[in-house]
Parts: sequence; C-alpha cells; structure tokens
Amino acid sequence: MDKLQEACGIIGISAGGENGGGLVSKLYMGLISIQHRGQEGAGIAFAKDGAVHCYKNKGLVSEVFNEQILSLISGEMYLGHVMYSGSQDKYAISAQPYVVNYKRGSLASAFNGALANAAELRDEMENGGTVFSTSSDCELAAVLVAKHDKGDIASAVQKVCGLLKGGYAMTFMTGKAMVGVRDPYGIRPLCIGTVDGRLALASESCAFDMMEGAFIRDVAPGEIVTLYNGEIRSVYAQKPKSGERAGCIFEYVYFANPDSILDGKSVYQCRERAGYILAQESPAEADIVIGAPDSGSPAALGFSLCSGIPYTIGLIKNKYVGRTFIQPTQTQREMSVRIKLNPIRPVLEGKRIVLVDDSIVRGTTMRYLIAAIRRAGALEVHLRISSPPVLHSCRFGVDTPDANDLIAKNMTTREVCESLGADSLAYISTEGMLKSLEVCGGENFGFCKGCFTGEYPNMDLQEYEQILL
Amino acid sequence: MDKLQEACGIIGISAGGENGGGLVSKLYMGLISIQHRGQEGAGIAFAKDGAVHCYKNKGLVSEVFNEQILSLISGEMYLGHVMYSGSQDKYAISAQPYVVNYKRGSLASAFNGALANAAELRDEMENGGTVFSTSSDCELAAVLVAKHDKGDIASAVQKVCGLLKGGYAMTFMTGKAMVGVRDPYGIRPLCIGTVDGRLALASESCAFDMMEGAFIRDVAPGEIVTLYNGEIRSVYAQKPKSGERAGCIFEYVYFANPDSILDGKSVYQCRERAGYILAQESPAEADIVIGAPDSGSPAALGFSLCSGIPYTIGLIKNKYVGRTFIQPTQTQREMSVRIKLNPIRPVLEGKRIVLVDDSIVRGTTMRYLIAAIRRAGALEVHLRISSPPVLHSCRFGVDTPDANDLIAKNMTTREVCESLGADSLAYISTEGMLKSLEVCGGENFGFCKGCFTGEYPNMDLQEYEQILL
Amino acid sequence: MDKLQEACGIIGISAGGENGGGLVSKLYMGLISIQHRGQEGAGIAFAKDGAVHCYKNKGLVSEVFNEQILSLISGEMYLGHVMYSGSQDKYAISAQPYVVNYKRGSLASAFNGALANAAELRDEMENGGTVFSTSSDCELAAVLVAKHDKGDIASAVQKVCGLLKGGYAMTFMTGKAMVGVRDPYGIRPLCIGTVDGRLALASESCAFDMMEGAFIRDVAPGEIVTLYNGEIRSVYAQKPKSGERAGCIFEYVYFANPDSILDGKSVYQCRERAGYILAQESPAEADIVIGAPDSGSPAALGFSLCSGIPYTIGLIKNKYVGRTFIQPTQTQREMSVRIKLNPIRPVLEGKRIVLVDDSIVRGTTMRYLIAAIRRAGALEVHLRISSPPVLHSCRFGVDTPDANDLIAKNMTTREVCESLGADSLAYISTEGMLKSLEVCGGENFGFCKGCFTGEYPNMDLQEYEQILL
Amino acid sequence: MDKLQEACGIIGISAGGENGGGLVSKLYMGLISIQHRGQEGAGIAFAKDGAVHCYKNKGLVSEVFNEQILSLISGEMYLGHVMYSGSQDKYAISAQPYVVNYKRGSLASAFNGALANAAELRDEMENGGTVFSTSSDCELAAVLVAKHDKGDIASAVQKVCGLLKGGYAMTFMTGKAMVGVRDPYGIRPLCIGTVDGRLALASESCAFDMMEGAFIRDVAPGEIVTLYNGEIRSVYAQKPKSGERAGCIFEYVYFANPDSILDGKSVYQCRERAGYILAQESPAEADIVIGAPDSGSPAALGFSLCSGIPYTIGLIKNKYVGRTFIQPTQTQREMSVRIKLNPIRPVLEGKRIVLVDDSIVRGTTMRYLIAAIRRAGALEVHLRISSPPVLHSCRFGVDTPDANDLIAKNMTTREVCESLGADSLAYISTEGMLKSLEVCGGENFGFCKGCFTGEYPNMDLQEYEQILL
Repeated sequence: MDKLQEACGIIGISAGGENGGGLVSKLYMGLISIQHRGQEGAGIAFAKDGAVHCYKNKGLVSEVFNEQILSLISGEMYLGHVMYSGSQDKYAISAQPYVVNYKRGSLASAFNGALANAAELRDEMENGGTVFSTSSDCELAAVLVAKHDKGDIASAVQKVCGLLKGGYAMTFMTGKAMVGVRDPYGIRPLCIGTVDGRLALASESCAFDMMEGAFIRDVAPGEIVTLYNGEIRSVYAQKPKSGERAGCIFEYVYFANPDSILDGKSVYQCRERAGYILAQESPAEADIVIGAPDSGSPAALGFSLCSGIPYTIGLIKNKYVGRTFIQPTQTQREMSVRIKLNPIRPVLEGKRIVLVDDSIVRGTTMRYLIAAIRRAGALEVHLRISSPPVLHSCRFGVDTPDANDLIAKNMTTREVCESLGADSLAYISTEGMLKSLEVCGGENFGFCKGCFTGEYPNMDLQEYEQILL
Repeated sequence: MDKLQEACGIIGISAGGENGGGLVSKLYMGLISIQHRGQEGAGIAFAKDGAVHCYKNKGLVSEVFNEQILSLISGEMYLGHVMYSGSQDKYAISAQPYVVNYKRGSLASAFNGALANAAELRDEMENGGTVFSTSSDCELAAVLVAKHDKGDIASAVQKVCGLLKGGYAMTFMTGKAMVGVRDPYGIRPLCIGTVDGRLALASESCAFDMMEGAFIRDVAPGEIVTLYNGEIRSVYAQKPKSGERAGCIFEYVYFANPDSILDGKSVYQCRERAGYILAQESPAEADIVIGAPDSGSPAALGFSLCSGIPYTIGLIKNKYVGRTFIQPTQTQREMSVRIKLNPIRPVLEGKRIVLVDDSIVRGTTMRYLIAAIRRAGALEVHLRISSPPVLHSCRFGVDTPDANDLIAKNMTTREVCESLGADSLAYISTEGMLKSLEVCGGENFGFCKGCFTGEYPNMDLQEYEQILL
Repeated sequence: MDKLQEACGIIGISAGGENGGGLVSKLYMGLISIQHRGQEGAGIAFAKDGAVHCYKNKGLVSEVFNEQILSLISGEMYLGHVMYSGSQDKYAISAQPYVVNYKRGSLASAFNGALANAAELRDEMENGGTVFSTSSDCELAAVLVAKHDKGDIASAVQKVCGLLKGGYAMTFMTGKAMVGVRDPYGIRPLCIGTVDGRLALASESCAFDMMEGAFIRDVAPGEIVTLYNGEIRSVYAQKPKSGERAGCIFEYVYFANPDSILDGKSVYQCRERAGYILAQESPAEADIVIGAPDSGSPAALGFSLCSGIPYTIGLIKNKYVGRTFIQPTQTQREMSVRIKLNPIRPVLEGKRIVLVDDSIVRGTTMRYLIAAIRRAGALEVHLRISSPPVLHSCRFGVDTPDANDLIAKNMTTREVCESLGADSLAYISTEGMLKSLEVCGGENFGFCKGCFTGEYPNMDLQEYEQILL
Repeated sequence: MDKLQEACGIIGISAGGENGGGLVSKLYMGLISIQHRGQEGAGIAFAKDGAVHCYKNKGLVSEVFNEQILSLISGEMYLGHVMYSGSQDKYAISAQPYVVNYKRGSLASAFNGALANAAELRDEMENGGTVFSTSSDCELAAVLVAKHDKGDIASAVQKVCGLLKGGYAMTFMTGKAMVGVRDPYGIRPLCIGTVDGRLALASESCAFDMMEGAFIRDVAPGEIVTLYNGEIRSVYAQKPKSGERAGCIFEYVYFANPDSILDGKSVYQCRERAGYILAQESPAEADIVIGAPDSGSPAALGFSLCSGIPYTIGLIKNKYVGRTFIQPTQTQREMSVRIKLNPIRPVLEGKRIVLVDDSIVRGTTMRYLIAAIRRAGALEVHLRISSPPVLHSCRFGVDTPDANDLIAKNMTTREVCESLGADSLAYISTEGMLKSLEVCGGENFGFCKGCFTGEYPNMDLQEYEQILL
C-alpha cells in the first residue's frame, strides 16, 4: 500500500523461574499482535543452559512457526522479532534475531530503527579485520556488543550506545541476561511489562494485552534496562540533554496499533483527537464523514465529533488480498488498489463527503480512491489528512520513498488537491498535530517531526544525510 | 469464528467476442471479491473450442492461482467458484466447478445452496446404475443436467429443476452456452451484469464493481437465464406461486458483502437500519455504542444514529490471524478469540457500553468479548443483537451447528444474558428485522426466516427434515 | 512399484555422556540410510531433562527435517523412525515415534512389524476405558508399556511382550532409558552398535556405517536390551522354544539394504548366492544375463557366475521418477512402468536373454518389462526369479496384496510364464532359497517362509488369520 | 557431486494433425527421460492459435508440473526444456524455454550449449538499444532470431547462425513453425524422430523410447531443420568444412543416458568399450572389478570382460539423497559423500580391487571413496579411469571448475594416485578413448577433445578464451 513502512517489532521475555510451553505460546501470540510492525520475517531466539539458539525465517509469524516447531523451543529466556525489510540489498538479513557466537558465548540481537553512522562504524571495524555476513544494523549492533563484552552485557551495551547515532530500540539476550535500550531521544518505542510473572520487553503495550500480561512502564530515552531475576536494573547510555526528547510522530499517526499506549499516550485517542483538531482548523460543508480504512477511521470519527457531520462506513476493505495477490499485467495495476477498497454506493450516492485519511505519501492510492467514490455517486469529496504533508525522508528507520515520489514535496497543496481530484484538501497543521498529542495523556515532551519539517532532533547527524538519502 | 457459514460463490462470464488475458485477470479479482462466501476451495472452468477444462484446488483464490497458471487459462467462456465446505465427509468435493464428460461433450457446474431431496435423487439414479464420485450436490446437479441434455442445455436445466427441492443458485457451462438458475423461492442470490462488454453472472453485485463491469439485474426466483451471443434468454423452471418469495435473511444479516445490493436492497443499509430499529425496540442508557468488528459495525452505527449515543471504535481486529493460526494447547483456546479482537482501554474505561453484533450462534466468542471489555474498564455492557435468536437449522445450504450448540435454543434470553455476562441483552424482533429489510430499497417480498422461526417456505420439504438434521 | 512393502525402520541412540549437534546430524543421516524401509513419514523423538519431545511429519527424512529444525533437537537420547504405511485407514498414524504422556512421565515408541492379536488387545483395553488416538500397533504398544510401567521400563516391556503375538522390533524411550526388543522368533531385525561412543539400536547394520559408528551384535530373538550408562542389560521376554527362530526371508530377498548384515548374513551375498543356486537348479541357454534394477542385479551376477553366461547391464533405471510422478491419464498407466526402466537396444538386440529378478508379486511390471526387452530386439527372454512364488499374505507387517492379485496364486508357473510373455520361467526352490541363506555366514537358524508356504512360525496365531486377511 | 555438469535438454513436438492430452503427457515423460541433462528448471512452451505460451519454473520436471497444470497445456506444437544452471549470476534465467514477443508474433527458444561470442553480440545489440532481461544465451538467441525474422523463421535462424560462434543445439518455435539447429561442428547433440505420428526433436534418442515414438536420424552439424506439416525441410547454416566434425566426447563419457544413441553410436557400448581398451592399456592384478555407481559401471564391465577379472557390485548408491539433503555442519561435508555411496564389506574384504570410474574432476569424492573401500577391508585399490585427465575448461557449455580445482592439472598422475590413496592409477589414453568411439557403430568422425588436450575445433575462437575462463 501507499503508506510509510516501519522497521520492526521486538518482544523479549526474561528468566526468573519455571518455564512451560505456555510461555512460548504467549510469545507467539504476542508476536502476532505486533505483526503490523513487520510482515517479512519472524524469529524466536531462546537461551537454554547458557547458550542461545534461534529459529527464524521469511514470512508471517503464522507461516514461520507451527505447533511442532514451537514445541521444540524451550529455555529460560526468549527473544522474538518481526521484521519489515524495504531493502533490495541481497546481503540484507531476511529475519531477526541475529545470533553471534563469540569467546564469551552467544548473543542474540533484535533491532528496530536505523543507525545514522552505520557505514562509518562498519568501515572502522572492517579495517580492523571484522567480517560481516549481512548489511544489517542488527548484525552491526550484535558484533559491537560482543566485542565490548567484558563479562557484563549491560556495560557493553552502554559503551556501544556511546558510539551509535540514530533512532533505535534494541534488545540483546545472552545465555544469562536480557538487556533492552532506547536511543537517547526515545525515537523508537520500547516498554516493560510482565508475562506469567516474568519481566518482559515489547515494542508496544498491546503485546502485553495479548500475552495476558501487564504493562509496567516505558523504557526511558537513553535508558538501558537489564531484566534479571525478577528485577529491573537501569543505567543510562547517554543522559538525554535536559530531558530533551523526540518520539517519532508517525508511530501515533500510522505505525502503532490503535490499542497501544506509547509513552503514556493512547494511540487511538491521539488519532481521534487529530481528526477533531483537523475539523476545527479546516472545516468542510458536507453530509457525511468517512475514513479510509482502517487507519483513517479514528480521525474520521474525531472529525465527525467536532463537526457534527455524521460518521458512516463508506468503504469496504477486502480481507482476502494478501501478500500473495498477483497483478496479472502491468496495465492492471490500478486493480490492485481497486480490489482492496470498494465504495458502498447507496451510502455515498448524492452525498457531499468528507474523506479522512491519516497521511498521504505518494498519493497514488488516494487518487484512485477519490475517483471510485465519485463513480459511486458522491457529489463532492473533501479530503482531510490528519498529519502534515510528508516532505522529507526519515533518518531513523522508516522506509520513506525518494523525495521525487513524495507528492507534497513536488506540488502545492492546491496542486495536490487537483491532482488527486478532490474538491478541497487540507492537512492538519504541525501545531495541531502536536496539540493532539499533548492532550492525550502522558507527560508532554518533544517529538521528532523531521519527515514534516526537515528538522531532526540529533543535529550532529546532518553530516550523515548524504549517506542516508 | 462463531458465525454461521455460507456455502459458496459463483461467477460466470459468457461468450460473445474476442477474449484477452485481461478477462481472466478480472475473473480472478471478481473471485477475490466474493471470497467471503467460501475460503476452502477455488476453481475456474473454461470453454475452449467446444470443450470444457478446469483448474481448481483447496485454498484461497490467491493460493490456488498464480500468474503462470492464469496465463494458461483462456477460452470463450469462464466459470469461477469459491467454496465453503463444512463437511467432514471424505467423499466430499474439495473445490468446484465440477466437470462431467458425457456423450454430448463436457459440462461444468458451479453450485451454491443445498438440495433437500438430494438423497432421494441419488438413490434413484444409483439404482439406475449411475456412479457418483463425490457426495456433493454440485456433482448431482451436473449429472442430472447431463442426463437430460437432448441438445438444449436450458431445457435440460428446466427439466432438472422440476425434480429439485431446496434453495440454490446454480450455473452450468458447456462448450457452447452458459446457463444460470435460482430456486423458485429465490433463496440463494444470483445476478446478471457485464464484464468487458460480455454478459456475466455473479452471486453478488460487488463482483461487478471489482471487475469494472456493470450490474444489470437479479436473476428472478425460478428463472433460468441463458447468456448467449450477448443476449439474455429467459425461461422459468417453476413459476413461483403467486409471486411467493423467500430470500435468505442471513444474506443481509451476515453472509453478503456490505457493498453488495441483493434483490434491490443494499446490504449495508439493511444492517444499519436493523441497528436503528433495534435501538427503537430496545434502547439502553449508555455512554458509547461500539460494534463487534467487522460485521456488527453497520448496525452499531444505526443504533447510534437512532439513540444519539456516540458511536466509537472500541475493539481492534487483528489482521494477521489467518487460517494457519495454531492454538498451541487445548487449554489456550480462549486465546484464539483474544488474539482476534483487542479492546481499546482508554476508549472503554469508565464507560457504559452498548455492544452491537449481527448475530449470536454459540455465544462462545461473545462471552469472552464481554469479559475482555469489562477487564478494559467498562462499567456496563448492554448487548444488542441485530437479528432474532437463531433457533433452527438451515435446510438450504447454511452450515448451522447442532441444535444443542445454539445458545438461544437452550436458554431464555435472561439466561443467555447472564451466561454471556452482559448487563442487558436484546435481540431485534422478527418484525423489526423484516421492517428493516422493507425500507431499504427494492420491491418488498417474502423472506425465509426458518432459522429464526422454524417455518420454511417450501412446506412440502418437511418430509426431508429428518435426513437434513 | 510392484514389490512387497516393508513397514518401518528404527534408530535409537542412548544416553551416556556429552551431546553435541553432531549426534543429531548423524541420526539424520542414519535415517536416510534406512529410508528404503519406509518413505511415507519420518520423526525424531528426544529426551531432555527427563521429558520426551518429538518432531515428525509425513514425507521423506530430507523433506521432514531441515537444518533449523535439527538445530532445535537436542537432548540426552534420540529415537528416530521412518515409516511405510499401506493403510488407507483415516485413523492411521502418519509418522512415528508415538509419544504418550502418563503418570510416570512420557514415553516414545517406535515400531516395525505387526501384532497378530492387536484387535483383541485393543478391545480389552477399550472395555477398560482406554481411548486410542490411532489404529496403529505403535500406539497400542506404547499404551500397554505405559500401563505396565511400575518404575522399571524394561520390566514393563517384558510384561507387555508376554501379551503380544506377532512379528516385531520395537524401541521405547523414556526420559531415562532406552529399551529395544525383538519378537521371540526374531522375525523383524534389530541390532546394537555405537555412535560417537554411545550405545545405539538400529533396524539394519548399514545405519552404523552411515553414522560412522560400529556394529556390535544383533538383538537376539525375544531379547529385551536396555541401553544405560554405556552398558547393555539383557532380559528375555519369552525364551524362544529350544532356539526355534523364524527370521523373515524377505528381508534378504528384497527389504534390507544390500550393504547390511542381518543376523550374521550379508544381504548382498545371500542375493548373489540365490542367483547362483537358481542357475544350478534352472539353467538357461542364453547369450547374456541381465538383472531387473536394482534389486535383481546381485542375483543376476550370481546366475552369471554359476552359468558362465556373461552379465551385462541391459536396463537403465530413471533416477528422476519419484513419488511425485503423475500418471496423466488412466489409460497411460503402462507408461509409469516404461518411464522407470528403459532397455538398451544395442545390448539386447539379437540376443538370448536371461532376465533375473528377486521376486514377482502381481506381475504387472514384469509383463511390461519383458515386452520392452523384446521390442528392443531380444530373441528370447528366460525369466529367473531368485525367490519362490509368493502365495500367501504376510501376518507380520509386510503389506502383501490381496490373494487375488498374487499372480502365482492364481496360475500355474507355465501359465504365469505365458501371461508374462517369457520363453521360460523358473523360481528358485524353497530349499534352494534356504540353502543360499545357510552358506552366507552367521549361524544357521530357521526362517519364516509363510509367504511362500503358508506355514507360519507361530502356530497358535492361526486363529487370527481371519482378522488379518 | 564431483562431476562435470551439462547445460540442458530439449524436446520439441511439431504440428501436423489432431492433438490430444496424450501428447502433453508424452512430452512430460520425455522430459523426465532427459532430466539428467538439467535438474534446476523445467518448462513447456506451446503454440496455440498462432501464439506462443509457456509454463516453466525452477525444479525437477515432476516438481514443476502436475496433472492439472498439464491439463491446461494444449496446442498445435510443444517445446520442452530441462535446465542446468551453474550460474550464480542473479540475472540468469531460471528456466527455459524463453519467450519473446515481437512485431511478427511470439517465439519460444530452447538452448543447449554456449556461445563463445555472446558478450560481443550483446554489446553490439545493446549499443543499438536492445534491452535484455537475463544474461542467458537462450534469450540472446531468441532476440537475434526475432530481429532477423522477415517472415521465414528458418531463414532468420540461418542468418543468426552465421553470427554465432560456439557449440550449441537450439530449437525455436513460433505460432507456425518449429526449427532446430546444431552448430557447424556438431558439438551438442540433437536428433529427429516421431511421436504419435508427428515430427519431433530431442537432445537424446532415449526420449523417443520413452515417448513411444521412433528415432529417425540425428540433425547434421550445421543443419537447420524445419518440421512442418509432416515434412523435414533442411538448409545449412554453415557447411562444415570438408565434413570436419567435433562431437563432444563427454556426452559419451558421462552426460548422455546410456540408453541413448548419439550420432550413430551407443552410449552404453562406448562406455563398455572404453573400459575394455583401458584394461588392455593398463591392466591390473586384482580379484574383482567394481564400478563407481552409476556412471562407472559400464566401463567396469568392459574392464572385466577384457581382463577376465570378475565384475561385482561393491558399492551401494543411496536413492534418497536428493537435492534437499542438508549438511548440518561444514565439518561434516565428508558425510555428504559417505551417505551417497556405501561399500559392501563382505564383497570387498580381503580383496584386491580394480575400481573403475568414468572421470575424475576435482578428486574429492574419489579420495573419500577409496578410503571407504579400504576401511571395508580391501587389500589393494587400483583406480582406472575410462577418460583421459581433464586439464582444460570447456568453451561449449559444460560447467568445468576453475583450472585450480582440476586435480590432474596440478599434479602428475603419480601425485594424483598418492593424493587419492590408490595403489595404482591409470587413465585411458586419448587414442584409446577415440578408438573406443570408433568401434561402436555409426560413421567415424572427429570429436572435440578440448577438455583433455586444450585443442578446440573452432580455432578462431581462441580470441574469446579470456572472456570465457
């Protein structure tokens, strides 16, 4: 689809008591609950008798694992991962966790995000004779931690984080310990909870709901947590400067599950609130409000709530169009969009429509969608987008298309409106976006709004831009 | 899931001009658009140079076909099918169309529904020496038509329909002609449209949207339509007695796609309207209205519209729980429900909830769902069901569980309410249900309400009840 | 193919020291070396920390296992199995080992052979309330042993063997011990050896070659061996009456690998010797001797050695005709034979041929083969079979066709010769067969020649014949 | 395995009458009969109503096709292919035939061999604006023929052959005609026959046996045959200079099926004869002669025939070690050889052995094999090779390893003997090799012995050597 894509999801369950098959089953279901963060590979590493083993493959969690394979996985600790890979690089990793064996034993690494200085760090290590198997940041991080391990894995992670620039959440598991860390700005999410009385880490809180566990708290920006023997030990990689933070706004806009709470804020409520503020900023005269399923629906409800224009369901999403869908000929590309969303004519016919979506990236899907809504008899289509225009590439792990393909980069809003065939178009303002996040619980803190404004939190990262883009 | 299951979907595209690969691609996408009618098998038969060929297999449309296989399918006519099979019978067919070769050539048959007198007809034919390969009504119909074919397939179908009792939509394709028919009461749906200028048949009108074609009209109850050379020829199998009709209500309640229009009525609007009437009949004092996704959402919107209680999204459906999902241990069965629907705590917490669903069959899913909503902090849960209690087995092709497993059959509504853990429970009345169907466009006609009332349209079918149940 | 089919192969590796991944790899290769004993299912059970786990599936060893799955298998003991299943029974087991959990822990069972009184034993247990999951003798044996386990698994096996009638080799593995047993007549084979310094059991000695281990000795008829802590402990289930034995002749004729040594006799040499004796008993005037590949080749060499008629290769076996081979139409069945064996015309043209095969069961393959050899220009075809005519069904685990399908049962040898289109036909005599086994090393002992003579070793088994046939 | 690998097999069946499903079935079986020429990809192109379609994929013939897919293939002509691909090139083709669509219609190409001037021809065409999809010679040939097609495909092929240098057999199929061609030296094989009364082409004559067809004759070097309407029309690309020919010797040594007759010579007899001459040239004092299965067996029989030393079977080949076999750890590589061939101890023990194989390339397999034979108790092992030492890379489509990996290139025969652990080693002389080919029927003509002598038939090709090696 025509959306930005995220880079991964992590769940780790630490040691601390008896283990049964039920724990592996819960991890499996936890991974399915964060499958939206990555659908191209899945894996589970586990620590048994001091050694780390791993089973992983390309595909969905439900394709990679089956009952018999899960029955072979048991140990004292588990580290699961779902992966998104935008890479066409043939040396890319195809699934995580990544396991390295080194003089002190074995180590599994699960990674979400992107390192801005990866090329520099690799060069340096390769000059020192290190050989890498893949081009992934996950392997790089694992090798760095292994290299700095003098017996205390948390200290090794601390030293390595001093070398890293970028946005990341990482989890490392040795035969003895499990360590999680977020970058100093808190760009990528990671939180702590329990599963069956054991401490655990997860990219999103919804995983704890699914595993019948309990959410405890978010990992703080720059914090390194070690889960050990039922205790959470905490050290800091780099103290965030005067509490400066920069959570990724797109987690709230699109990536995270609506039933997750990230850094204290309900993802669903942020989305609904953004729709509400959008209606205040850019009202429309219309008969009904509809959302582009599924990610546009909460903001559409918010728009309806504020404007008083009735919300309804105007587009049906086909549940059977999976990754295996084929587009028989090139000229029929449009049909792959058509098959995913079908308008309900009796709902739309003769109506003035407000269509709300969470974001526009290339605009190709939206152009078709508006045409389809018109063919179904809509009189007017007023497009409202609950995030600001995407104008810049992400440097922290989100797979943004080339600047040339970003529709808002190359046209004025009026031109975009015309190009998409809408009667009017408005985006939420950056201020409105930030305001929607403020009022939704949790303390208020800074966000990375780089993809909207081009201002990235980590100023000294600008030198890496060339490499990244 | 804990829903009634339908028995199949059909799409046929007739001859009438030049054919290109694009037509097969469209048929493929049309089949995906009716995949909800059957997910266990898929197939495409095609007529080429006067002979009928077929490719079919178990699995979803997107699993059975790939680009290379589609590239091998070309001819003058096509007949596609998606199949649901509740059968544990090892002689059951695993996918349709079913092709028979006989003295006049070959014939493909695609079937939706059930024949009430199948056993009797089989007995009679087996006594006459006929050997069947499967226990399916689809084969039975094909063999009967082949037997009665004296050169005009429509006449053969007409004769055969005189022998059949039950609810069905069938399509037959020979090397020369395509014929579709609905039972005299119009229980199962079938409609006519065009694709790329050719006449076509489909179980639901949404298929024509997907194939970029145009809907023309529904096949009338008892009507036999022959698509030939761009003309629709029509004869009647049995004239419905004084226009008596009996469309399956469950098509509107659950089976059909919300973007379809069946016999003139918008499925979406019928569902919304049922929710509206339900709110009139059984109001509730509450803070928000939520639907059980996805099938409960339209009625929840209707309930909100009538009651003025705000509609919101309170439950998130996991998109990655497919047919391959495993339930690692028996004791964790509940988790398979848990993983499919997750409540959004910040939306539900401290609220009095109206939860709307389209139907209750066994009640197992609903019991869990209400518990989950309570755990998410809901103060009260008022359950409203937009169809009457299911009390009887279907005789016309719907896979109803044993009467023992129908929760409403064995308990009073008060007991069901308690058993499910709701604060109140109300179903729409049968009259309310019928009223919702009346106001949603199309002419008004009778419906089969057998599963609610035990009164089946075809009175003389009662003798077959013993065989069926 | 048109051969009798065997029922399984077993390899068990016992505890006794450190374990590495290499041991699982060796077991994997050992299973491939006995794959000829069963190609329909494969599995490995393993004992870890006192509990038994298992991974198994339908398919060849190389299809069921892959590197990642093998990497998840590790423990103190291993029990592997390859399965042949002639059964169409839908309750049949699809792969072994079979694992049962019971009050004393868990137990894996691997089985080769057949129990003559299985139905009786099941009835008795079912009357006592036992529920079986499959119809297999493997499960029956596992359940019986679990039921009789009072803490010493060897004693339990001993008691159970007192109840069993039939021909079998079985291996049981609990979390602590591994026990192997052969029936009192030694019908099915089982031998002891070492792999990486650990004691092990295998159906055939060739497995020890493959696992770079060493053969120690055959398990004696009726012997129960417990492999524990590097020691072989031995008790007897039932002392064979005065040393009476009844090894299955067909193991030497066809089932066993030519590189195995069973009960002291080289399988290859027995086959070659049978050909030698056959040439003495039934000489032929001919130009060349050829074997039906691969199983007829050793006897053909023996025939050549005795007769002085030169041996040559006259038929080429296609290596690419696997289980997945399809026979596109029924009328082309003959082609499935044709594709497996192709005659070399320049070798056969103008020659008088002696064609040697190890056995004839239905005769269908042979009929085609002789026709093909004639089409390739052979002047005469003298068929010589290095085992006596198969006239009776096996009661001890070999999948014999219905008596109606045994060509020798229904025709005189002259009629068979004519039916197959040979110029002459001779089988080795039963005496000749036995003599060939005598001279090939090992002590001399009795054999079961039931399939040739109808005399079965276990006289009191005749009452079960009705059930079996 | 440690053998040279061939590059492909072709079967084409031309138009000329009614077609039934039986013809596709026969083609399918024909492809299985030449599967030894390529196991990595398979495909069938077919011409229907003037257009060419194709179904192909990676894998064995029996994996790529199944009954349903074959049932979709029907037309007036068929072109099948099996492919070997030594290439690691990611732009390589994964299966043939290759189909191009161009202004005159569509064209399928099936290729066996290698073009020496491919790079030059590509450069030239790319400079002219042609875009290639793959790096294969098959595509190059197809594009060239399409480019030169002025309405008569045979003329186009004739023109194209004037541009090509190398060794090849190619077949082209348009909607109307089928054309086959061999390079002017006749390096790669191609022959003509009939299947069900239709004219056909095949890489080897064994395919006609399998398809119940009849062999007619070999295509002559440089000959372009057009199969049309039951007639064979013949033109010449380039007249071979004074009948100079250069058939690939390795076709007789290893590639071709023993039941094929290539250019008038029986492959089996050539191999047997080479063994005979080898025994004359380099006798050995020994007790038995054994062959390395399967390709060494005919020469071993010849050696036995000449020397009088009895031939026997000493090594058993495992039938279940397929492409899916995994080598669990790098250190266990030797086991992958071990698992393929197991010595029969009772046959070898205490004996002086002559071991005959058809060729040695790297020597790795042979080293292990001799060690295994010694471990099985052999007193002496005299290695005899029925082809001369391989010293040079092939330029005509055979996948030869780097010169560094050719054991005979880097050691004297005495050193090779020691390195392999044999007691003596002898190769057949080049003269002996040629003599063995002379006496085996057919007219006598020249051979390419480049891999033995470094002298290639096409002298002006030497300029391309740099590109090729």
